[in-house]
Amino acid sequence: MTPGRVGIVGAGQVGTMLGLALGEAGAEVVLADRDPGALEAALARGAALRGVGLGEAMRAETVILAIPVPEILAFLDRGAGDLAPGSLLLDTGSAKGSVVRAMARRVPRGVAAVGGHPMAGTERPGAAGADPSRLRGAPFALVPVRDDAVAVDRAAALVRATGSHPLVMDAEAHDRAVARLSHLPHLTAAALALAARGADRRLASTGFAGATRLAASDPAMVAGFLSANDGEVRRAADDLRRALDELVAAVERGPDAVRPLLATARAAVLEETG
Amino acid sequence: MTPGRVGIVGAGQVGTMLGLALGEAGAEVVLADRDPGALEAALARGAALRGVGLGEAMRAETVILAIPVPEILAFLDRGAGDLAPGSLLLDTGSAKGSVVRAMARRVPRGVAAVGGHPMAGTERPGAAGADPSRLRGAPFALVPVRDDAVAVDRAAALVRATGSHPLVMDAEAHDRAVARLSHLPHLTAAALALAARGADRRLASTGFAGATRLAASDPAMVAGFLSANDGEVRRAADDLRRALDELVAAVERGPDAVRPLLATARAAVLEETG
Repeated sequence: MTPGRVGIVGAGQVGTMLGLALGEAGAEVVLADRDPGALEAALARGAALRGVGLGEAMRAETVILAIPVPEILAFLDRGAGDLAPGSLLLDTGSAKGSVVRAMARRVPRGVAAVGGHPMAGTERPGAAGADPSRLRGAPFALVPVRDDAVAVDRAAALVRATGSHPLVMDAEAHDRAVARLSHLPHLTAAALALAARGADRRLASTGFAGATRLAASDPAMVAGFLSANDGEVRRAADDLRRALDELVAAVERGPDAVRPLLATARAAVLEETG
Repeated sequence: MTPGRVGIVGAGQVGTMLGLALGEAGAEVVLADRDPGALEAALARGAALRGVGLGEAMRAETVILAIPVPEILAFLDRGAGDLAPGSLLLDTGSAKGSVVRAMARRVPRGVAAVGGHPMAGTERPGAAGADPSRLRGAPFALVPVRDDAVAVDRAAALVRATGSHPLVMDAEAHDRAVARLSHLPHLTAAALALAARGADRRLASTGFAGATRLAASDPAMVAGFLSANDGEVRRAADDLRRALDELVAAVERGPDAVRPLLATARAAVLEETG
């Protein structure tokens, strides 16, 4: 199956990455962005056949919203009624609860709407940060909006065309997992960097560099996805704080008290990587 | 300068690594360990010319204590009086306050005693985890025990023979920095792994793998160095908790509130790596 005509809204890192991957897969991609500089940078990287206005992007067979969550919600409030009957609407926002609720309310019944989230980002924002090779083999979450198996199948076919694996799940499981597996690591990397101020950095090991790497990400990009998922981020941070308190209390009781906790953490990590 | 006759006490990861590096630099290395299996594994890797008893290791020109901090303290309590006049005593423990205080009390005046800490470890304990290539260009902290510049010069020459850079500092600055740059990253990696239990791991990104890599370390090794530096680890964890609370509160106020904090964290990280 070829993806046909795809209209991507948003010429940032995600829109550029998907445009490059779908163009490679044979799609006719057009790209819209209200920022002419961003659009030009994405077109220079070959993300689309041409830049278009929002109205033209929305008349494609498949419309992909590759914009931050607050802009997705604003788009759905204002423009969802103009989507063409029979088209597929997919977003790429990093939090899914608010997006799929708004899709259910705002997107006309004849449009196949699915929430999406590619797990293939880089630390750099904008077209320059887009790396379509990251899509290959990466998970791409798909969250059904209505009881519409055909919509999910169409979205899954599009995801496979990018090289990623579709993972169908509900919004709550997505937001909870992403808070713990992506947003919380960003928060703790930043907190580690802040807590290390004043320490003699000449003693920094490769372990410290690895643990704080995510703190080098673009602050505006990270601020956006943390705030879009703030409820689950708060709950994840509460869980982290509890784990940390338990570890510190055990450290003060001695090696025999902390060793079993570290062994449990190690098993959780090895289960994931192995 | 060749390092001469070196007696290493402890055939684990650090003792094996230093034995390999110093042997390469022309030292005559002998190695002692009360665990015959550990000694055999280190000798099989070529860490020393031969295995010896503790008494013979202590009669070398240079004696290196490559054992955990509690064992270093026990050694200093019992055996420091038997060190030969004119010899150099260096340890490799990951916390320096308690070690250099015990050295000042227990080591005879005629022995040049210096606290040491090579920042060149790996995640695997024992001889199998020793990687002497990690010493090349790595920082190696040296903490003076007495007002004895000759002792520090001798220790620095030994450190240079391993390929590392000697960094002379006081115990408090060392313990504070290592708590924040090494011990706290281990704690947070474990806490992240614990907080992620129950989340759908299929959504784990490379960011999560990087942020939790240290949690795959040997629990007994990590439990040992966390407990040996428990006071500074507690203070570092308090700083981390404050930074985390500030970040979470800002996330709930919105992207404009959290962005400046993330930018400060990013500057702290880039200062370190760039």
